[in-house]
Amino acid sequence: MPEPSCDVIGIGNAIVDVIARTDEAFLVDHGLAKGSMHLIDAPAAEQLYTQMGPGIESSGGSAANTIAGIASLGGTAGFVGKVADDALGTVFAHDIRALGVTFDSTPLNGGSGTGRCLVLVTPDGERTMNTFLGAAQELGPDDIDEAGIAAAGAVYLEGYLWDPPEAKAAFRKAADIAQSAGGDVVLTLSDSFCVERYRDEFLDLLRSGRVDLVFANEHEVRALYETADLETAMAALAGEARHAVVTRGPQGCSIFNEGARVDVPAEPVKRVVDLTGAGDLFAAGFLFARARGLSLQDCGRLAALCAAEVIGHVGARPQANLRERAQAAGFDI
Amino acid sequence: MPEPSCDVIGIGNAIVDVIARTDEAFLVDHGLAKGSMHLIDAPAAEQLYTQMGPGIESSGGSAANTIAGIASLGGTAGFVGKVADDALGTVFAHDIRALGVTFDSTPLNGGSGTGRCLVLVTPDGERTMNTFLGAAQELGPDDIDEAGIAAAGAVYLEGYLWDPPEAKAAFRKAADIAQSAGGDVVLTLSDSFCVERYRDEFLDLLRSGRVDLVFANEHEVRALYETADLETAMAALAGEARHAVVTRGPQGCSIFNEGARVDVPAEPVKRVVDLTGAGDLFAAGFLFARARGLSLQDCGRLAALCAAEVIGHVGARPQANLRERAQAAGFDI
Repeated sequence: MPEPSCDVIGIGNAIVDVIARTDEAFLVDHGLAKGSMHLIDAPAAEQLYTQMGPGIESSGGSAANTIAGIASLGGTAGFVGKVADDALGTVFAHDIRALGVTFDSTPLNGGSGTGRCLVLVTPDGERTMNTFLGAAQELGPDDIDEAGIAAAGAVYLEGYLWDPPEAKAAFRKAADIAQSAGGDVVLTLSDSFCVERYRDEFLDLLRSGRVDLVFANEHEVRALYETADLETAMAALAGEARHAVVTRGPQGCSIFNEGARVDVPAEPVKRVVDLTGAGDLFAAGFLFARARGLSLQDCGRLAALCAAEVIGHVGARPQANLRERAQAAGFDI
Repeated sequence: MPEPSCDVIGIGNAIVDVIARTDEAFLVDHGLAKGSMHLIDAPAAEQLYTQMGPGIESSGGSAANTIAGIASLGGTAGFVGKVADDALGTVFAHDIRALGVTFDSTPLNGGSGTGRCLVLVTPDGERTMNTFLGAAQELGPDDIDEAGIAAAGAVYLEGYLWDPPEAKAAFRKAADIAQSAGGDVVLTLSDSFCVERYRDEFLDLLRSGRVDLVFANEHEVRALYETADLETAMAALAGEARHAVVTRGPQGCSIFNEGARVDVPAEPVKRVVDLTGAGDLFAAGFLFARARGLSLQDCGRLAALCAAEVIGHVGARPQANLRERAQAAGFDI
């Protein structure tokens, strides 16, 4: 393929996060499984918002966070996702464009507004997410620009796209375009509950060779293969995916590359403030390093560095300039 | 007076902050005086927003931040300020009520929306604020609830209230009610540019005995008395105000109390992330400690502790539970 004009295009739910600190009791009282993502409807979102503490609004969305990270590293990136023509939609569009990301998806007029995620952060830094998809429900194949996808080195797709009714068709369309054009199709499994909902379809995607690289955390890979044993699950994934990366929080990550395995330690973090976006920014560092042709070890190291930045503060988007942070750590990028 | 049913009621501009990191060159290019607050109109706000980096939205407003801090310390507090009936107004109302603060001001229908402050934070943590007042322009004497003010131990008023056309009338009305009821009138000078705009009126307020306690930082007190010498300015203030507190950033604060002076050091901070809200949270700690009858030294210490919390993260509202933080530091509150 010719030199891609864009490192990565991400496709995902366009979401603005509303992040509030909470205690464990609040999660128990509201029947929320800690560390997971729950889909909620508009009345439930309004009720939970009334009951939760003061928040901070920050652009989010899993794939969008990854794309923001790639842009912060100096990569060229685009994002496809559906916001509404409202105040939060303006915020989302501003925040991603301000990083130099191409974001041309037409906003939705009317409807139930831009998608929001009510993120509850417990004192241990773990986040529990409650997502009202709103306009993101309306993402469909018509939002996929063939020329844009074909010109990207990789297309990055979140497993959460299986939730809105038409988004998986958009996913499949984008994957087909990318593979025809010689680009990579990258999938993140998103969340263990998401894997429970769509296990068979995700396994089918991997087995059909439609995915070139898959990201999963330890919970997701165990959910995918329905086993409590991480090594068993990782071996199964490595046998089915050409390239796979499994993140294991403070234990670092394991990279599987056509049979070979490389383990990379996590970047030490003084204090885990908010884990929101840790996996997303890990993927950002990995994909950027991969696009620049760095070694697997360095892909894992840059990924860990980006994840460490985002868990050191509230919010799922980088607050530091990741390019400068990486250069200070010795990366020649 | 009978035991007040509320520690402090704050009156100020109801603002949602949009906080973005920037470099020094951006401030120079846009002719913005670092560390100050600039009033801008709607087109200027839109233009600046387009040009600035990705942001985080967080409820703000100087007096509102102070009231949020008092509530986080476990105090009883109310706030009076004007938002619009829009998404940001909903955010502002949620965030302050979620802390247990009484906030009953009627939102404005239509108009130019809830007030916003575009806050640019440079790498040194200094913040430069660009405020579009929006609905806050419409605050007036009718928004002042006589019974509420009369039942408060203190009414806290920001100097920024001199900017909207009718807010100073609200200020005067609230001050009159508080003094008649035996409550304290507390004023913060807000900003050195604000002092430049309203110097004579502020001096008149102090000299007429309408203010019981005044907060100022070193820049504001120097601007008030038009002298570069801080000690000269502080001596002048101490001679005119019954009670005054001058904050001097990392040099701590000087408390003047009917002729006596107490200096209290600042709380050490590992890294200054964002100075937005430092003065507001200082006032929160001081006013709460004062309402609990603590010594001047302890008022200053609790004030410094609250300021230290807010400058350790992005955003002008506390992210930690200040009551727990204060108890851990040995305050019996």
